[in-house]
Amino acid sequence: MPNAFQPVNPPARVLLGPGPSDVAPSVLRALGSPTVGHLDPMFLQVMDEVRAMLRPLFGTTNDMTMPMSGTGSAGMETLFVNLLEPGDKALIGVHGVFGGRMAEVARRCGAEVVTVEAPWGRALDPDDLMAAAKAHGPFKVMAVVHAETSTGVLQDLAPMRAIADACGALLLTDCVTSLGGVRIDLDAHGVDAAYSGSQKCLSCPPGLAPISLSDRAVKVLTTRSHPVQSWYLDLNLIANYWGGARAYHHTAPVNMNYALHEALRLALDEGLEARIVRHARHAAALSAGLEAMGLSLPVPPAERLAPLTLVGIPDGVDDKAVRGRLIQQYGLEIGGGLGKFAGKAWRIGLMGAASTPRNVTLCLAALGDALRAEGFSPTGDGVAAAAEALQA
Amino acid sequence: MPNAFQPVNPPARVLLGPGPSDVAPSVLRALGSPTVGHLDPMFLQVMDEVRAMLRPLFGTTNDMTMPMSGTGSAGMETLFVNLLEPGDKALIGVHGVFGGRMAEVARRCGAEVVTVEAPWGRALDPDDLMAAAKAHGPFKVMAVVHAETSTGVLQDLAPMRAIADACGALLLTDCVTSLGGVRIDLDAHGVDAAYSGSQKCLSCPPGLAPISLSDRAVKVLTTRSHPVQSWYLDLNLIANYWGGARAYHHTAPVNMNYALHEALRLALDEGLEARIVRHARHAAALSAGLEAMGLSLPVPPAERLAPLTLVGIPDGVDDKAVRGRLIQQYGLEIGGGLGKFAGKAWRIGLMGAASTPRNVTLCLAALGDALRAEGFSPTGDGVAAAAEALQA
Repeated sequence: MPNAFQPVNPPARVLLGPGPSDVAPSVLRALGSPTVGHLDPMFLQVMDEVRAMLRPLFGTTNDMTMPMSGTGSAGMETLFVNLLEPGDKALIGVHGVFGGRMAEVARRCGAEVVTVEAPWGRALDPDDLMAAAKAHGPFKVMAVVHAETSTGVLQDLAPMRAIADACGALLLTDCVTSLGGVRIDLDAHGVDAAYSGSQKCLSCPPGLAPISLSDRAVKVLTTRSHPVQSWYLDLNLIANYWGGARAYHHTAPVNMNYALHEALRLALDEGLEARIVRHARHAAALSAGLEAMGLSLPVPPAERLAPLTLVGIPDGVDDKAVRGRLIQQYGLEIGGGLGKFAGKAWRIGLMGAASTPRNVTLCLAALGDALRAEGFSPTGDGVAAAAEALQA
Repeated sequence: MPNAFQPVNPPARVLLGPGPSDVAPSVLRALGSPTVGHLDPMFLQVMDEVRAMLRPLFGTTNDMTMPMSGTGSAGMETLFVNLLEPGDKALIGVHGVFGGRMAEVARRCGAEVVTVEAPWGRALDPDDLMAAAKAHGPFKVMAVVHAETSTGVLQDLAPMRAIADACGALLLTDCVTSLGGVRIDLDAHGVDAAYSGSQKCLSCPPGLAPISLSDRAVKVLTTRSHPVQSWYLDLNLIANYWGGARAYHHTAPVNMNYALHEALRLALDEGLEARIVRHARHAAALSAGLEAMGLSLPVPPAERLAPLTLVGIPDGVDDKAVRGRLIQQYGLEIGGGLGKFAGKAWRIGLMGAASTPRNVTLCLAALGDALRAEGFSPTGDGVAAAAEALQA
């Protein structure tokens, strides 16, 4: 048959949505390097180095720290299928799409799920979690979202260990949009299990899900009474490939691990503290600009997630027309709202390589243009306000 | 902290193991192209084209044909978790690692599994399957491995539909090492569900698992009485992203899909028939060379899988020393034995971009050298025998 398809030739976007974020040139080069075998001595070294570099980003010394061969959602599923067995109880905080997804995944593991909710756009109240822990415990797992990608809310993990202890639970956290952009201290906060994705603040393409499990969580893996319902995500098997025995389990995504290696290297070269400050600084400038334009930020300042800003869509403005103009005129992607915020808010990411002063300025200028085209006149100069914030 | 890690700098290997295979330069370039969003109009077109190009390779018009966001083993798990429910019965042919893995995955879905076995290195006997179908049926699913990557055996799928009909089953096949290298006729053979991997005869890096489901299999998905135990692999949800609604499910591995697109494009440009003939021709030359050297090929000629040749390790020859010399001296990877063949046989792949006359010649010459270094003198000139076979 004749082949009518042309080679892929992607346009140069500026990716300011909820992920994937812009990928650094050296990460793309690493990704496109020659493939070697998944048991090649060179690749085994890449694997070891990826593990070593992930640990400081997660704030942990956990031996079981590695990327799963799937996207962030596979990371989520990995932790639940390995730590829960049918009939176990899980306490899950829900204040956005990803908390809700955790609850759904836990139910599909046969677990009995108790949820504690907060309004979308707000953090969970630790008192609510403690009350549920005491009223309905004990639990096998307690799970909260550190960085709610659907709402741009950062959850303080400091109070969580005491709550998990009050109900005898392992503490599990979603760090998809925090790893590499916000400080994570798994060990200091007593977190037993965390998962993330490669395509957010690490600025690697999507396809890998870094995870980390404490020794206490690993002990639960090895003392299960039922096999893990997922063979593909069974950590007892996978640990034998990523760890000492190097036993074949599945064929690791070799090139994606090259890319993650380079992305982690760039993060450590920058320095974690500097990287976190950068994300915070640019997010503050973006927020100042958006507010100067008369746009609303639904999340209270103290609960904002620097890498991802939620901004209300003004009444009468057509969500899709604005996002369409941004992509067509400027090659600029911002994210639509998800769940309860669908059609009501945008999500603007400044993650990893995309968290730059240039992108703050471009985003505010282009958004101002797109809003005016839709009949909304900004009340002030967003670009100037952001520039002022960047000077501060 | 100071960062001691250097950028990845993979050596130029020749990948003649059981996968990954050598990746064509244009596929690596596609892989390293700029990332766009997973809902970008350009990426939606890539997705549609990937689906369209996969269909002729699978020999199907199945609408539900697409790559899963994981490796081949995730493709296997996808089919079992979606098509089986707790208490269902599955009839599974086992004559190598991957048949055994299918049985294990089916059991983890809560299915009652009946296996039919054949000796490793041989195909399944259809009469044995028919006898089990009649004695133990009905079954929900009957599964056989088309291309057993652990033994290099090709299973004729022609007799399978009648057996599946005899026990009322959906027919499921593992096509990991056949897709793109051996003719697959899902529709003509009445196969309801098949999975593969990107890194074998398609010569794309590992990380995606093409699958295809017949309308009859899709109907089973939509009439389940329990939710699919895996949220990540739930085809009812994923079909809404790869299909019309474009509803967010997970963040697709964007760059890996670029690479698969290019790998499929190269396959269709070559022409399926020409590609299959190429794989058969080079495998025949390799086999002629190996036999001329006095090496044994455990699989009978009629059951050999062209992309992957099983060759016995001569008595007294050190498996790891030979493979180590090949990789150190020649940058040449061949595969060790798996399961019952561990330490007893090698697996030599000639898959996709790696199936070339040059690689046949190099492999035989280098293997001859490595065997002599281990004290085994080939009984004849493998290179000459292969050259003669290539002329024929």
